[in-house]
Amino acid sequence: MAVAKEAVPGYRHRLHEIIFEADTRAGKWFDVVLIVSILSSVLVVMLDSISGFSARYGYYLYGWEWAFTLMFTLEYILRLACVNRPLAYAGSFLGIVDLLAILPTYISLLVPGSQYLIVVRVLRVLRVFRVFKLVNYVGEASVLVRALQSSRRKITIFLLTVLTLMIIFGSLMYMIEGPEHGFTSIPRSIYWAIVTMTTVGYGDISPKTNAGQALAALIMVMGYAIIAVPTGIVTSELSLAGQKRVSTQVCPACMAEGHDPDAVFCRVCSERLNPETGRDT
Amino acid sequence: MAVAKEAVPGYRHRLHEIIFEADTRAGKWFDVVLIVSILSSVLVVMLDSISGFSARYGYYLYGWEWAFTLMFTLEYILRLACVNRPLAYAGSFLGIVDLLAILPTYISLLVPGSQYLIVVRVLRVLRVFRVFKLVNYVGEASVLVRALQSSRRKITIFLLTVLTLMIIFGSLMYMIEGPEHGFTSIPRSIYWAIVTMTTVGYGDISPKTNAGQALAALIMVMGYAIIAVPTGIVTSELSLAGQKRVSTQVCPACMAEGHDPDAVFCRVCSERLNPETGRDT
Amino acid sequence: MAVAKEAVPGYRHRLHEIIFEADTRAGKWFDVVLIVSILSSVLVVMLDSISGFSARYGYYLYGWEWAFTLMFTLEYILRLACVNRPLAYAGSFLGIVDLLAILPTYISLLVPGSQYLIVVRVLRVLRVFRVFKLVNYVGEASVLVRALQSSRRKITIFLLTVLTLMIIFGSLMYMIEGPEHGFTSIPRSIYWAIVTMTTVGYGDISPKTNAGQALAALIMVMGYAIIAVPTGIVTSELSLAGQKRVSTQVCPACMAEGHDPDAVFCRVCSERLNPETGRDT
Amino acid sequence: MAVAKEAVPGYRHRLHEIIFEADTRAGKWFDVVLIVSILSSVLVVMLDSISGFSARYGYYLYGWEWAFTLMFTLEYILRLACVNRPLAYAGSFLGIVDLLAILPTYISLLVPGSQYLIVVRVLRVLRVFRVFKLVNYVGEASVLVRALQSSRRKITIFLLTVLTLMIIFGSLMYMIEGPEHGFTSIPRSIYWAIVTMTTVGYGDISPKTNAGQALAALIMVMGYAIIAVPTGIVTSELSLAGQKRVSTQVCPACMAEGHDPDAVFCRVCSERLNPETGRDT
Repeated sequence: MAVAKEAVPGYRHRLHEIIFEADTRAGKWFDVVLIVSILSSVLVVMLDSISGFSARYGYYLYGWEWAFTLMFTLEYILRLACVNRPLAYAGSFLGIVDLLAILPTYISLLVPGSQYLIVVRVLRVLRVFRVFKLVNYVGEASVLVRALQSSRRKITIFLLTVLTLMIIFGSLMYMIEGPEHGFTSIPRSIYWAIVTMTTVGYGDISPKTNAGQALAALIMVMGYAIIAVPTGIVTSELSLAGQKRVSTQVCPACMAEGHDPDAVFCRVCSERLNPETGRDT
Repeated sequence: MAVAKEAVPGYRHRLHEIIFEADTRAGKWFDVVLIVSILSSVLVVMLDSISGFSARYGYYLYGWEWAFTLMFTLEYILRLACVNRPLAYAGSFLGIVDLLAILPTYISLLVPGSQYLIVVRVLRVLRVFRVFKLVNYVGEASVLVRALQSSRRKITIFLLTVLTLMIIFGSLMYMIEGPEHGFTSIPRSIYWAIVTMTTVGYGDISPKTNAGQALAALIMVMGYAIIAVPTGIVTSELSLAGQKRVSTQVCPACMAEGHDPDAVFCRVCSERLNPETGRDT
Repeated sequence: MAVAKEAVPGYRHRLHEIIFEADTRAGKWFDVVLIVSILSSVLVVMLDSISGFSARYGYYLYGWEWAFTLMFTLEYILRLACVNRPLAYAGSFLGIVDLLAILPTYISLLVPGSQYLIVVRVLRVLRVFRVFKLVNYVGEASVLVRALQSSRRKITIFLLTVLTLMIIFGSLMYMIEGPEHGFTSIPRSIYWAIVTMTTVGYGDISPKTNAGQALAALIMVMGYAIIAVPTGIVTSELSLAGQKRVSTQVCPACMAEGHDPDAVFCRVCSERLNPETGRDT
Repeated sequence: MAVAKEAVPGYRHRLHEIIFEADTRAGKWFDVVLIVSILSSVLVVMLDSISGFSARYGYYLYGWEWAFTLMFTLEYILRLACVNRPLAYAGSFLGIVDLLAILPTYISLLVPGSQYLIVVRVLRVLRVFRVFKLVNYVGEASVLVRALQSSRRKITIFLLTVLTLMIIFGSLMYMIEGPEHGFTSIPRSIYWAIVTMTTVGYGDISPKTNAGQALAALIMVMGYAIIAVPTGIVTSELSLAGQKRVSTQVCPACMAEGHDPDAVFCRVCSERLNPETGRDT
């Protein structure tokens, strides 16, 4: 493996260090410049969507748009060039995001016609996916991600149950209130049920009849109690992750891990544990 | 018991395996087809409620509606046929849901007259109860259900207290704001108090006077602090369920407790633990 | 003390058993009748507030109103008669609630004049306080009450901090949006800030300018993170109450309590603990 | 150090005791008067913003405004006079808040002109920052502050992730709904996404198309599950803070850890614990 790494040409190794790592001075600067560029390009897309701003500075925004796209294209090619397995990178989540971030601007060239320009501007918005990379740079996120992953199943079951309740309550409200009070169809009534149970409550659709308001009150109180469940799931997972005060000792005989901090003998093979090895906090 | 099972005729045993269990290839396929059918029939009911869609494709939707109803009727009869105690099944929660899911379509035949058709469509909506079955297929839900069951009493007390507060605050707002600002009666004012305390906040009724807005602000801040209570209840129950991974074994030599479930030797004195003593879940 | 109880005349003792306790058959029936009466009288007040209902059945509601008031007055007098220290009862929280529940109807007699009748109806609403008694009957509430009491200080600090933030943000919004967008005064802007931070969001007042919407977005995201704090406070208190897995052993030498379940020697005086004494669940 | 304190002139020492401490009778009275003055001056600013009140009592409010400002100015000078290092105080957070609380009134003198008076009134609002001092007086707040500080990183990551989602969903809604339904630009659509995900839900902007309502429903359900994360973070930190009542002492004989803070002897081997070794908080 060390040999394989030696076999990599020097410039590719150097490029990889700069682009993919952040240990060297050049690598750090590359990352900082990249984040600033990503945020700037997102800002350009946002400003372009404001009609007054777009009418006055549209020309400059278009220029910046292309400058960022070309810069990110060059970056994408360099990334492909300096990894050992370009296809693996191109197929990874971040590789796909990198590609999606530059494609919309090019597609706007291949499809001419003024009426499609608005669609292109819409596709451009996908560039904001690049912001996702920011998360990648922060190491602390892993605890949160692990807690969410281990509670993934429970949250799925919870969401399915809530969606079932929303379908039933939405249908009931469609029956009770009917199209004349804004509940024009079951899907729209389910939309109302979601707006209500998540406690968003726009008020664009709201029950008018006594029976409808009574059912709505029931749904709200139910949603009030139900919101406790996902919180409880995530909290208990995070608490478990935080409480794990397991010794870092490894049994010298059977290599078993996860001993209690006050364990003297291995609970699996009765070998005496080495008290000198590090104990975690 | 094994003898009793043998006494069941072969085809009933086979049917039971297919319909009620999911261990065989046929049983798995039956479940998949059933879930797809349930979701499709719910979709048909939903599409039928959209006026534009119903006017154009109402004929086909009516056909599908009957196709699904007949299919589910056959399934219900087969379920009754292959269980040993049909009445016990018919009286169980899932049995009643199965029956409710097919009845509305038949009732629409017995009660003719165009003006009642809308009511029938309304009863049809009960079919969505069948979605409940989905939960049945997932084994993971039991942890959530147990945590909610053991916190059932605390949540009931909490909800009673909140409802009492809502009645009092609703009545107070009826006095302060009065019918001219939308608080037309105490029940409607209580509806407003529920909308406010659960932080839904439609805005269809909102206080206009200074005193009313001051009381509303108090109610909101109170609701803000109160929402912590059900979350705390469920979280502490789930945390307890998640942490309970300690064996009930007691070391025969030093009487130490709190061993891990996979412990073979005592972590305090290295004595071999007795594997026969009960292990909790 | 036992002597003092003997000294109580027989009928007072019997009355006390029926009215204040629920151990005997008569005591249980009294409580059930009382709860039904309380809920009925609250329902009468509610129905009376609905203008259509009041116009048609106002006469009967007035009769029921007086019937309940006289019944509760008799009950109040009997309670005073059968306790040893009537003043202590009259001054207690439940005693005051009992009095407040009957006073409004009598006050409506002393103050004649049609224009005051509405005010009387308003005072009547205080009768719903009687519902509070319901809580008294449930023993489970004590865990919740204790958890809330021990987190009382932290929640007070939290609410003070949130109120300070609401005053500052409300004032800032008054500056940014001004009276022309509904933010007519600082108190009203603070009302808006409370509506927003508690995620109620009526929409009766909402920011219109770009700066106002930006600040509102900041307030919402802040409120989103802040809502975690009271939940965390209550949850950790409830978890502590639930987790307390302290041994019930008492040191035979120094009487110290609160030993770990696996403790062999007293941590205060090194006396060997008695392993036979009961261990908690 | 004791010598340095002796060197402080007697009246400065006394002033410091009164103004900065609350142990003496005079110090306590000073604090009470100060808090009442702060709350009164905030009330004056609030009342001044109510147009009807300002028109009638503006003259008196102006007088009180100046009385409080002069009083707080004197207090600020005394604070500077009685501390050993005035610059350190002036540069501290509370020192800056003290200065900001008196500056706006003086600035209103330097900048004459009726049209600027409104701006001055706006700056005056900053006086409410003084309320922050209240927090300073409560010692209990430190547990909350520490729990929030130790979860600072996780909450930052969480907020960045949520903001990224809000930017993406806001942009998608701008594409789907467009300016004709109120989504006039990407920033405004992001404002809508924030209003929705935080479950505030004003309803001033709400989706009208079917696709928009479907996406909005998705965003709400996602926000419903996501709100669990900050709660989980803060709760697990607070739980850890509450549970951490374990001494860092190690038994010199058997190396057992996890002793209670008041333990004198090892609970495993009865060896006397070394009282000099560090105890944590």
